[in-house]
Amino acid sequence: MKMNAIMNLSAVSKQSKKAGLPPGSLIYVPGDQNDPAGGNDGEPQNIESVPVFMNPFFVILYNESGFSEKTYATVDELIRAEFSPDTLSWIHAAGLNDPEAVRKIGEKYDIDPLTLEDILSMKQRPKMEEFDNYFYTVLKHTVFDDTKKELQDNQISIVTLEKTVITFFENEADIFEPVLKRIKKDGRIRKNGTDYLTYALMDIVVDHYFFVLEEFEEWFDEVEKRMINQPEKESVGEIIHMRSELFRFNKSVWPLTNVADNWEKSGSKLIKKSTRVYFRDVQDHVVRIIESIESGRVAVTGIFDIYNSGTSKRLNETMKILTVISTIFIPLTFIVGIYGMNFNYMPELEARYGYYICLSGMFLIFMGMLLYFKKKKWF
Amino acid sequence: MKMNAIMNLSAVSKQSKKAGLPPGSLIYVPGDQNDPAGGNDGEPQNIESVPVFMNPFFVILYNESGFSEKTYATVDELIRAEFSPDTLSWIHAAGLNDPEAVRKIGEKYDIDPLTLEDILSMKQRPKMEEFDNYFYTVLKHTVFDDTKKELQDNQISIVTLEKTVITFFENEADIFEPVLKRIKKDGRIRKNGTDYLTYALMDIVVDHYFFVLEEFEEWFDEVEKRMINQPEKESVGEIIHMRSELFRFNKSVWPLTNVADNWEKSGSKLIKKSTRVYFRDVQDHVVRIIESIESGRVAVTGIFDIYNSGTSKRLNETMKILTVISTIFIPLTFIVGIYGMNFNYMPELEARYGYYICLSGMFLIFMGMLLYFKKKKWF
Amino acid sequence: MKMNAIMNLSAVSKQSKKAGLPPGSLIYVPGDQNDPAGGNDGEPQNIESVPVFMNPFFVILYNESGFSEKTYATVDELIRAEFSPDTLSWIHAAGLNDPEAVRKIGEKYDIDPLTLEDILSMKQRPKMEEFDNYFYTVLKHTVFDDTKKELQDNQISIVTLEKTVITFFENEADIFEPVLKRIKKDGRIRKNGTDYLTYALMDIVVDHYFFVLEEFEEWFDEVEKRMINQPEKESVGEIIHMRSELFRFNKSVWPLTNVADNWEKSGSKLIKKSTRVYFRDVQDHVVRIIESIESGRVAVTGIFDIYNSGTSKRLNETMKILTVISTIFIPLTFIVGIYGMNFNYMPELEARYGYYICLSGMFLIFMGMLLYFKKKKWF
Amino acid sequence: MKMNAIMNLSAVSKQSKKAGLPPGSLIYVPGDQNDPAGGNDGEPQNIESVPVFMNPFFVILYNESGFSEKTYATVDELIRAEFSPDTLSWIHAAGLNDPEAVRKIGEKYDIDPLTLEDILSMKQRPKMEEFDNYFYTVLKHTVFDDTKKELQDNQISIVTLEKTVITFFENEADIFEPVLKRIKKDGRIRKNGTDYLTYALMDIVVDHYFFVLEEFEEWFDEVEKRMINQPEKESVGEIIHMRSELFRFNKSVWPLTNVADNWEKSGSKLIKKSTRVYFRDVQDHVVRIIESIESGRVAVTGIFDIYNSGTSKRLNETMKILTVISTIFIPLTFIVGIYGMNFNYMPELEARYGYYICLSGMFLIFMGMLLYFKKKKWF
Amino acid sequence: MKMNAIMNLSAVSKQSKKAGLPPGSLIYVPGDQNDPAGGNDGEPQNIESVPVFMNPFFVILYNESGFSEKTYATVDELIRAEFSPDTLSWIHAAGLNDPEAVRKIGEKYDIDPLTLEDILSMKQRPKMEEFDNYFYTVLKHTVFDDTKKELQDNQISIVTLEKTVITFFENEADIFEPVLKRIKKDGRIRKNGTDYLTYALMDIVVDHYFFVLEEFEEWFDEVEKRMINQPEKESVGEIIHMRSELFRFNKSVWPLTNVADNWEKSGSKLIKKSTRVYFRDVQDHVVRIIESIESGRVAVTGIFDIYNSGTSKRLNETMKILTVISTIFIPLTFIVGIYGMNFNYMPELEARYGYYICLSGMFLIFMGMLLYFKKKKWF
Repeated sequence: MKMNAIMNLSAVSKQSKKAGLPPGSLIYVPGDQNDPAGGNDGEPQNIESVPVFMNPFFVILYNESGFSEKTYATVDELIRAEFSPDTLSWIHAAGLNDPEAVRKIGEKYDIDPLTLEDILSMKQRPKMEEFDNYFYTVLKHTVFDDTKKELQDNQISIVTLEKTVITFFENEADIFEPVLKRIKKDGRIRKNGTDYLTYALMDIVVDHYFFVLEEFEEWFDEVEKRMINQPEKESVGEIIHMRSELFRFNKSVWPLTNVADNWEKSGSKLIKKSTRVYFRDVQDHVVRIIESIESGRVAVTGIFDIYNSGTSKRLNETMKILTVISTIFIPLTFIVGIYGMNFNYMPELEARYGYYICLSGMFLIFMGMLLYFKKKKWF
Repeated sequence: MKMNAIMNLSAVSKQSKKAGLPPGSLIYVPGDQNDPAGGNDGEPQNIESVPVFMNPFFVILYNESGFSEKTYATVDELIRAEFSPDTLSWIHAAGLNDPEAVRKIGEKYDIDPLTLEDILSMKQRPKMEEFDNYFYTVLKHTVFDDTKKELQDNQISIVTLEKTVITFFENEADIFEPVLKRIKKDGRIRKNGTDYLTYALMDIVVDHYFFVLEEFEEWFDEVEKRMINQPEKESVGEIIHMRSELFRFNKSVWPLTNVADNWEKSGSKLIKKSTRVYFRDVQDHVVRIIESIESGRVAVTGIFDIYNSGTSKRLNETMKILTVISTIFIPLTFIVGIYGMNFNYMPELEARYGYYICLSGMFLIFMGMLLYFKKKKWF
Repeated sequence: MKMNAIMNLSAVSKQSKKAGLPPGSLIYVPGDQNDPAGGNDGEPQNIESVPVFMNPFFVILYNESGFSEKTYATVDELIRAEFSPDTLSWIHAAGLNDPEAVRKIGEKYDIDPLTLEDILSMKQRPKMEEFDNYFYTVLKHTVFDDTKKELQDNQISIVTLEKTVITFFENEADIFEPVLKRIKKDGRIRKNGTDYLTYALMDIVVDHYFFVLEEFEEWFDEVEKRMINQPEKESVGEIIHMRSELFRFNKSVWPLTNVADNWEKSGSKLIKKSTRVYFRDVQDHVVRIIESIESGRVAVTGIFDIYNSGTSKRLNETMKILTVISTIFIPLTFIVGIYGMNFNYMPELEARYGYYICLSGMFLIFMGMLLYFKKKKWF
Repeated sequence: MKMNAIMNLSAVSKQSKKAGLPPGSLIYVPGDQNDPAGGNDGEPQNIESVPVFMNPFFVILYNESGFSEKTYATVDELIRAEFSPDTLSWIHAAGLNDPEAVRKIGEKYDIDPLTLEDILSMKQRPKMEEFDNYFYTVLKHTVFDDTKKELQDNQISIVTLEKTVITFFENEADIFEPVLKRIKKDGRIRKNGTDYLTYALMDIVVDHYFFVLEEFEEWFDEVEKRMINQPEKESVGEIIHMRSELFRFNKSVWPLTNVADNWEKSGSKLIKKSTRVYFRDVQDHVVRIIESIESGRVAVTGIFDIYNSGTSKRLNETMKILTVISTIFIPLTFIVGIYGMNFNYMPELEARYGYYICLSGMFLIFMGMLLYFKKKKWF
Repeated sequence: MKMNAIMNLSAVSKQSKKAGLPPGSLIYVPGDQNDPAGGNDGEPQNIESVPVFMNPFFVILYNESGFSEKTYATVDELIRAEFSPDTLSWIHAAGLNDPEAVRKIGEKYDIDPLTLEDILSMKQRPKMEEFDNYFYTVLKHTVFDDTKKELQDNQISIVTLEKTVITFFENEADIFEPVLKRIKKDGRIRKNGTDYLTYALMDIVVDHYFFVLEEFEEWFDEVEKRMINQPEKESVGEIIHMRSELFRFNKSVWPLTNVADNWEKSGSKLIKKSTRVYFRDVQDHVVRIIESIESGRVAVTGIFDIYNSGTSKRLNETMKILTVISTIFIPLTFIVGIYGMNFNYMPELEARYGYYICLSGMFLIFMGMLLYFKKKKWF
């Protein structure tokens, strides 16, 4: 078990570097699990080991009648570009280690410095914050690494303005590919505003949690199967690890109920009444995921109880074997010891069939013992 | 114990297939426990193995003065049918793998696409959603499979319009048979509106939970009896299984308090004031069921404590047997060992009654030991 | 431990018989613990085994200036009787297996069918429901059966109208005797309205809970004393049973806070302002009872911890005995075994004082061992 | 452990005597721990064994310009006395077994009968009740009996009128001595009203809880020290006792947050705005005490875990000794047994150095075993 | 484990000395962990052993156009100084054992006596109190002492007036150094009011908690590593200690959510709307810290479960060794005992190859046993 993975503490380690800087200072705070070069946490990141800010910037412009895609090689080109007021624009920004680029985008769209700081720090909790001219939403795209049996979080920041949605990814991610396709094919998404687009993005992130639940299911089934087949080989460490990964998953998902609720309940005119019901639907899904996680905890507790009960059962069985053997043979050994004594006058020893009588007596005791343990249902 | 049954995860597995589809896409998401062909979760369902959309559609029309039943062979016939505005109509739709039929019904009655999607997904939590022109209620008809000791959920969707109630079943179910009879016999239900009919349906679903509680009771009594008779044969697995089935049951029942509360508190004019008190009554029943489940948990905890205490009690007893036998015979064996030594000069061996004195001494030690353990109340 | 007593499930069993009946159907649903003939739960009740509806009906009429008692042989007589509008009337109805009588009373006093149904079902939770013309209060008169160590609930339904209070008892009960006496003697109760009478009834039910707490106290003290005197005889079953009875008691008492609160907070003109403070007092008592129950749980947890700790302590002691005996005698037995070998050339055996030297050596080892265990504080 | 002390049940025993009496009946309900004659709970209290109502009544009159003390020999004198409307008066009444005196005071100052009843019952929870003309506050002055390691509650009732504060003590208590001194010396308390005096009394009661926490600290440290020095002598009973005393203490303190909050938030004109901030300060202190109690619980859980872990550690060590001894000597004993056999033809026995070879072999086995256990780190 | 550290009780010990003093009495109540002379808790502090009130007082005056620093040798000089109404002033006061100085400052700035009392008592919980003319904020600067593995709290009181911020430190602390630097360098902090300065101070305190989390992480990793390498040497005490230090840390951090919330939600005109969002950001950080602490608890529970499971695993293994050895050699010893008997007529003894047959038989039994345990997977 990697303790710091549980506490998310090495993330903290980067955070603590910021102590003393003025709030709103733009510094890239990387996530931990996704470090391509995992060893140098907190070291100055050399250029090859970190995700490069993904030039060119990809932008899709759309309205009810159609869509167009554009690509800008540098952030300055993006800043200079003027988008028609008749279209909605969705700007992709993947990889986030260029604070300057984020600052420039923030300036163009009048985004609060605190939001920019949050965009660059990969350690946000999922949240939704309402500003005068935009909504800021943080989501966690969670992937289950099947080899290490570990969750990996990729942070997604969504800034929803009236005519523009900007998405910032921690890593290059193709999770929003389907939404892109739907914009190209499907009229519905193009008929609606940026609130609906935000909903569509959020919906897809939430739907991916169901994949994670599936992976958990497989893992649990596998552990359970091993526990049934080779209970003595099973290690409590893996059960604890299962528990803590579930806990981490819950930590990613749980704040989403607030996020969806804030979207639904917000009084802002950015959100159309017809869109609110969709956020209610998202919340519904989140609640189902949380309930499944809760069920998973009950299941882990069950596995742990079975493990513990198996341990004491095996101890019981070990002790029974020892007790049966000892109880049968220790008295018999005493008897043969008696006739091994060297007293000058021991009449039994002289008896013609003494040896056979002695053997028969011991055999009777042996059988009696067996019957006794049989009756106690020890076999 | 079937871990995925606990986490309801294979249900999730079907859900996760939807990730990336536009919200409101109508796809049949089957439940897991009820798959006639249980093995092919997530595989394309071949036609024999799934419940077929039950043609013909059954409709009962009624008002205070009488009732009439009609049957429509196909969904298109149902759509074309015009019902008199003087009557209330209750439309049955059982088996739900024909999204097209659901879509057509939804179109006719102006039902939101999100609702249609929920009707087709068998993995909803019990809930009540208020729309402009209708109420959407999801219930779980829960049955306890006595052989597998497993709960099986059948989802029931109720769409309550002003003049029409449409019920969608996951499987063909005769749970609403008594309501049908009462419509035919009893004036009261015919005097009231669709809100009262919805109440009658909800009431019968809730009353069925009492049957499930009965089954749990029998199961618990049986486990408890076995634990008293053959404590050492009892497996912790079944206790854990009891706990998780109770947990699942609670998951089905618990959201109903909100459902009933929403019906009672809703400001909609669809619900008459006189009907509200009935929903309060439903809520009362739900609270009693939840309390019984809570009691069940206390009972399971008790059984588990008894199990654990039994395990350590048996260990204690095993150890006592071993200790008594060892404590008595090991010193005696030492004594006979002494007189088995081959020293040239051992005066006791020469003594005339040495052997008998030795035997008597050992007998006294033996009796002393017995008395000691008697005093310690080990027998 | 009677599992169904804990889950209150056999109660449920009767409830589930009602599934499918129209709401408001008047059927007598008996309680379980009080069945005079305990065996035939759910069987059609033959006439001797159930409490008969207590004819004649007892009525006391009173106002500030005086009181009068009347008795009606049948329900029809009661219905026909006209009470002066200047007096308050309190009607007793004990034993409740005559639904027809309840229906007739309900008709006369304009009581909602749902209330009548609740009056006849002995499985209500304590509650208070406000209707337009009356208040319906359900209480549980709880008695501790000292022999079976089991709580028994007797349901009391109180219907409080403007001029009339009707009390329905599950069994004939003299719990309200003192209130009757106070009406006859004491001016205060006669000066106040039906709200004050209801308060007086509720107060006496709550005060009886203190008796139950006393019984629990005696029981706990007894178990604790036995645990100290004969810890090894104590069974975990009784502790679990204590826990579950406390849980059941809490279930009866807990909803009363709401009942008292509803009475205090109700905006109805049936409740005079001066009476409200009395209901606050009742609530105060209920809170104290709940706190005592909570304390009882802490006490039971303590007993359980002592039990468990005692178990492992005894195991430890058993093992110490075994270890001391084995550790002392197994090496000594090895030594005597050495000198029991039959090698031709073993110089020690020939030595004149070999035997005594050997014995002395073993005695030294023996004493050394004893000192070692003494130092380890095993004696 | 005194179980009834935990459940506060014998207190209940006195309460249950009141069942059936009209509410507001004035009866002295004594507390349990403070009974000078502890044995006769619930028996009619004979005159020597109970605290006598402390004549004379002590009254201090004060205003900004000065103060005067008076003493009244009997309650009737007190009732007849007229206090100047320019002064505030604080009336002491210690010892409470004279219901008649309480009734008379209540009459003079127009106190509700329910309040009088509460004043006489020593089993109140801390609470604050607002009446039209006065505030009624119940506090618990808690003392830790270091010998019995038990908390003792002394109930203090404070009736705060506009010009008068009346304090009723369960026993003679000098806890308010410092307040008296401050009235005599300090101008501030004399400048303020009865609300400030009530605050001063409450503040001193709360400050005394810090003493109790200190006693707990010492107790815990002492138990911990003993556990480290003589872990095997430590009894689980004392740990459980610590836990339950902490629980009882919490029960006394916890309701005080509400008391202070009610004083701060009350809309009554009896409380000046400038005094409210003081009650907020009291609440702050109470919260800190509750947090310390919570910390104490964590500490007790820690001690309990250490105790349990110590138990299984000692079992482990016992078993290791047994296993080492058995594993070394049982095989050796087998070997010497072989050469103790009496077969006619056993070549080893004839060998010249057979005996020495045998001894050397056994010595090698012995050393091998020792090395093995050394490697397993059993020593 | 230091129990009083957990309960924070010796802190209490100083508090309890105040019982009986009038509220608002200015007495220095020192913290416990930071006592330079740890032994004399509660003793009159002699002058060398306590932190001296740090003369001179350091003041920084600033506005948008610049800043100036001043130093006052005594509190009287500070009181006499007049600051220009165009500048904001930030007054440092470190070391707090001079109540008189605090009283004088309080007089000058019109600070409530209760606040002054709180400033001098080092045992406050983090809180924010709003007064008419100022805000009083208590924070805890927490440091993890890596040697003793103990948290140390340093209390910081911040009084925020309209033009002045006064900070009181328990000890001399350089935690606010970076803020000082920013005032000198950075225009932003000088453009904003005292609310922003307070935010900056609070932000830096919260950011330091991330350092503490890092220290916890290292500690946990170290314990975990030792547990894997030398599980039998690991002591439960350290795990319990980890748990209680986490608990204490939580106690310091948790109230901060309220503090930040009060700042954000306060209706006072002292807080500009633009500053509120910063306090929301602080709250966000606090929530993340609390979640990390929660994760830490899960981790500690995991370590504890691993510890316990390791204990019973080692017991199981010990017992297996004992059982294998006993099961193999006890029966064999019995057999050799048989042929050590001295019966006159024992035909096997005479047989030519009796000895070899006997040895072979025993070897077969030995191998069979080994195979049996192999099959049971005991090796």
